[in-house]
Amino acid sequence: MINVTPDGIMASVRKIREMSPLIHNITNYVVMNTTANALLALGASPVMAHAKEEVRDMVSIARALVINLGTLSQPWVESAFMAAEEATARNVPVVIDPVGAGATPYRTKVFRDMILAFPPTVIRGNASEIMALSMESATTKGVDSTDPSHQAIEGASRLNKELGSVVCVSGEIDYVVHGADVATIRNGHPMMPRVTGLGCTASALCGAFAAVQPDAPRAVAEAMAVMGIAGEMAAEDAPGPGTLQVRFIDALHRLEYSHITKLLKVGGKS
Amino acid sequence: MINVTPDGIMASVRKIREMSPLIHNITNYVVMNTTANALLALGASPVMAHAKEEVRDMVSIARALVINLGTLSQPWVESAFMAAEEATARNVPVVIDPVGAGATPYRTKVFRDMILAFPPTVIRGNASEIMALSMESATTKGVDSTDPSHQAIEGASRLNKELGSVVCVSGEIDYVVHGADVATIRNGHPMMPRVTGLGCTASALCGAFAAVQPDAPRAVAEAMAVMGIAGEMAAEDAPGPGTLQVRFIDALHRLEYSHITKLLKVGGKS
Amino acid sequence: MINVTPDGIMASVRKIREMSPLIHNITNYVVMNTTANALLALGASPVMAHAKEEVRDMVSIARALVINLGTLSQPWVESAFMAAEEATARNVPVVIDPVGAGATPYRTKVFRDMILAFPPTVIRGNASEIMALSMESATTKGVDSTDPSHQAIEGASRLNKELGSVVCVSGEIDYVVHGADVATIRNGHPMMPRVTGLGCTASALCGAFAAVQPDAPRAVAEAMAVMGIAGEMAAEDAPGPGTLQVRFIDALHRLEYSHITKLLKVGGKS
Repeated sequence: MINVTPDGIMASVRKIREMSPLIHNITNYVVMNTTANALLALGASPVMAHAKEEVRDMVSIARALVINLGTLSQPWVESAFMAAEEATARNVPVVIDPVGAGATPYRTKVFRDMILAFPPTVIRGNASEIMALSMESATTKGVDSTDPSHQAIEGASRLNKELGSVVCVSGEIDYVVHGADVATIRNGHPMMPRVTGLGCTASALCGAFAAVQPDAPRAVAEAMAVMGIAGEMAAEDAPGPGTLQVRFIDALHRLEYSHITKLLKVGGKS
Repeated sequence: MINVTPDGIMASVRKIREMSPLIHNITNYVVMNTTANALLALGASPVMAHAKEEVRDMVSIARALVINLGTLSQPWVESAFMAAEEATARNVPVVIDPVGAGATPYRTKVFRDMILAFPPTVIRGNASEIMALSMESATTKGVDSTDPSHQAIEGASRLNKELGSVVCVSGEIDYVVHGADVATIRNGHPMMPRVTGLGCTASALCGAFAAVQPDAPRAVAEAMAVMGIAGEMAAEDAPGPGTLQVRFIDALHRLEYSHITKLLKVGGKS
Repeated sequence: MINVTPDGIMASVRKIREMSPLIHNITNYVVMNTTANALLALGASPVMAHAKEEVRDMVSIARALVINLGTLSQPWVESAFMAAEEATARNVPVVIDPVGAGATPYRTKVFRDMILAFPPTVIRGNASEIMALSMESATTKGVDSTDPSHQAIEGASRLNKELGSVVCVSGEIDYVVHGADVATIRNGHPMMPRVTGLGCTASALCGAFAAVQPDAPRAVAEAMAVMGIAGEMAAEDAPGPGTLQVRFIDALHRLEYSHITKLLKVGGKS
């Protein structure tokens, strides 16, 4: 059973605000500014670094590593592999966000190679990304359901069995899959997918929570709950996604226990 | 005659919202976030991808390709050429935004080489960029006017004759030039040039409209009209360009037929 | 004595608004958009360019060069050296922002090598960055104080003696160090460090002021005062750092003499 409670979420948020853990991001050009701002607003310390000459040193002082190759190219892929290797050796939690897996063979292969070489603590993607990554690990493509989220949860479960990684399938409902346990988070707002990079922000927040909460499935579920709750706070009366993006950062900064108790919508099974 | 009407604009906007066409952007670091957000707010699906290993695959699933090398370097130039070649072969509409053409010999040459190698569907730039690109194609520099916009329109016309591309000269008044036809769009707000990258956003929107409107001059004029109208909506009571940037994204999301009928200011000759 | 007055600040702001000096930025991916917007809002003309093929040409038309390698990699380092060399040869003011100096040996070495090879007009960093850069130049590590800002000011003074560069240590109080003179600026707001890249923006503004004010220590002190004043204007009633980031840009655009006379808090010694 993945234990997601207002008290647990608030305890993690307080730890992030007090310890200000350094989160090392190797992430894409589109979201660097908003990812850094989200981590700062929550209370963490972001750093973006990808040079081969320093990537291992940066991992060595970080409390989590978040890899998101949304605008990948070969030099970045190589640095990401080096960073993942170093983090694995040092037991620094690693979050991998397989942006666009399935869209091109190159992306799918890079992400597949990376998770096999260095099984991460957490994989977070949308349904099609998780299905693309997991298809390759399926002995049969075994699609016994026409419900895409059902297929994605099965894919997440296969990836979890294969690698041991906590797998999060995010969407209208977020699913956090680990062993027989599945937590479901029903927070969020329909306007959120109209803001670029909130999925990338979710992965960065998974890193921040994993830096202070050693129970990884719980850290991921807490991060996704905070994403959804901040999104709901930001969407209230927002005339469009421009305003939502700005207020989302404000909401991470303003977040208090009362918001969580009022808004949290979680469930699960084990 | 380039036909720009509220009904036509709204029909294109509705198609973008319904079909959510994938727009492949090879664009600069400064504007990636705002370009992606503008396309999402309008209803399109942006993707940013530049790796040689995937750029052809990405073009093959895209409905338009937008190339904007505002922060160019050699690897990006090579990828952009590959993408332009693939898009041309597949009849995917291509928009080229020659950011900073004329500022350095390298930029001017890269953009000139690119439009000669793969004449795009659309070229959109400001007056000095279009003049820089077209000067090189003029047998005489033939500057028979001291009015810079007149010179730029002549340059646009030369480029159009040479390449067949629809050429848009944007500024206080936007001109869309194709054959003997010139559409003029008088929408927009004086604060818009104080926000970085709205020109780049205009080029991305040209891509989105070209994805749903096969009449390219009309697609470009519609995109520029929507830019200007959204800018006017955003500038109303805005205390500065920071707020304008946020509200511009909101305006693309909120845009309705009534805004267009109320605000549209177009003219033209043929 | 570094002369910082409301009249002097406003005179520089007016010159920037009238002349719109071209500021060439070789800066990091995280802040490119916000840096460009801050420069535009203030009245300057930003350009971002890093290709070896054009970096010298761009410097040749710029009124200041700002180098900020927050997301450095080897190709960018090489371009930055070329640009610094060209700017030095042409007497174009150079601002170096040593982001993350001290965090990894690679960063510290790159920045140290750069300031030794091409002593810049201005170095602006936080206390730990300035200490990291200056430690390497200290014959003894001479830390005779447990007050980190005291150490940083000593480090700034050592760097200034070694290189002749005006050195700014920014933080809750900003110190501008040149020879025996130290200006202190007590403007700003505690929420500002929760917005990513405002330090980078400060460096870019130092470039804009240095482009119109040939007295470099004064240009830097004026830029830092405007940063702090705009930050205070932006923070008023701001619910969080998302809103602060947007309103900060608005504030640079709105800035008038009355804001400066009302809010300026400077001191100094010589």
